[in-house]
Amino acid sequence: MASNELVLLDHWVSPFAMRVRITLDEKGLPDESKHQNLQEKSPLLLQMNPIHKQVPVLIHNGKPINESLVVVQYIDEVWYDRSPLLPSDPYQRASMRFWADYVDKKIYDTGKKIIVGKGEEVETAKHELIASLRTLELELGEKPYFAGHTFGYVDVSLIPFYSWFYLYEKIGKFNVELECPKLVKWAKRCILKESIFKNLPDQLKVYDYIVELKNAGKYK
Amino acid sequence: MASNELVLLDHWVSPFAMRVRITLDEKGLPDESKHQNLQEKSPLLLQMNPIHKQVPVLIHNGKPINESLVVVQYIDEVWYDRSPLLPSDPYQRASMRFWADYVDKKIYDTGKKIIVGKGEEVETAKHELIASLRTLELELGEKPYFAGHTFGYVDVSLIPFYSWFYLYEKIGKFNVELECPKLVKWAKRCILKESIFKNLPDQLKVYDYIVELKNAGKYK
Repeated sequence: MASNELVLLDHWVSPFAMRVRITLDEKGLPDESKHQNLQEKSPLLLQMNPIHKQVPVLIHNGKPINESLVVVQYIDEVWYDRSPLLPSDPYQRASMRFWADYVDKKIYDTGKKIIVGKGEEVETAKHELIASLRTLELELGEKPYFAGHTFGYVDVSLIPFYSWFYLYEKIGKFNVELECPKLVKWAKRCILKESIFKNLPDQLKVYDYIVELKNAGKYK
Repeated sequence: MASNELVLLDHWVSPFAMRVRITLDEKGLPDESKHQNLQEKSPLLLQMNPIHKQVPVLIHNGKPINESLVVVQYIDEVWYDRSPLLPSDPYQRASMRFWADYVDKKIYDTGKKIIVGKGEEVETAKHELIASLRTLELELGEKPYFAGHTFGYVDVSLIPFYSWFYLYEKIGKFNVELECPKLVKWAKRCILKESIFKNLPDQLKVYDYIVELKNAGKYK
């Protein structure tokens, strides 16, 4: 096999970067993580992701791949023989892609409105976020993971947000576990896995960091 | 091969439905198109896409697939032997997915702000749309299609919006061809293909339809 040099332009608090770190660990792939300053973007980040200028960027043998779900699928395709994240059946793959896309559309931006919104906007966003988490809980059903018995693509896309739950709860004044007990049970099951445990930051640390950024007018 | 019953929950003006119609025609797959009333949604649509309640939905042997890019990838994977839309190389696939995702994030919602926005909002949206189209034009470069010499996944994702250009131009008071001549040249090249020609509605018809919806307060 050709040599595989993997460099990750990374940030510990980014749920999108967490997806890539989890995927690399699921595949047992060592990488060099380069922590990025998101306030003052490095020339390397601007060069490797000129379009969105965001982490994560995976650089594989010098070539950049951007957008977390694109990166996760890329890693899964190149190293499909190790713990595949997407099933081989096209219908099941479509279903997984649908739900990962749902996570992308429904969690982060709504969560941001809870964090930076004012008055009524926070309430609306909170109800939206709870509704989306309930929809995900319903899809999970009684299964241990979204795809069934194996940890997979939808789990990778959603689990990083677990580290942001306390932040959403504290600011939005609600409790995810009361609203979606089965989803939190799923998250606690995921976090027993080493690939998740080592890549998800502590919920309090995320809270402190984002609140500090917000107070400095830098979380936008 | 097992029998393939393909039903498409469709709407002629939806650029997302056009993506699926184009893909089916690229693969030479006959389908039954069921035109949907988007003001009064049919029980079938609500049943087949309970999450987003939107067209397009492809129903393959009774099983629904939702979200246009998920559907396009599904069709491409099941019938990969006929005119593949995504290349086989993982890096090129990632690049195509990145750009199709870019189209998804940058065109429709910005275009909507041009159509329904007020004053300054329209101007901002117009500049954003032009900037995004220029970014796409730059990525296209001198290639006949986004992937090179063959019509593919990024072309499928973007070409439907060509039928909405006149609508954007007329309301936003600009001219896409003046801003992005090479991109319009690409669109005119695409439209020579039968799969595009027969599935893209006339730009004036789109304009009349959406303006009427807007005036009735039904384009939101």
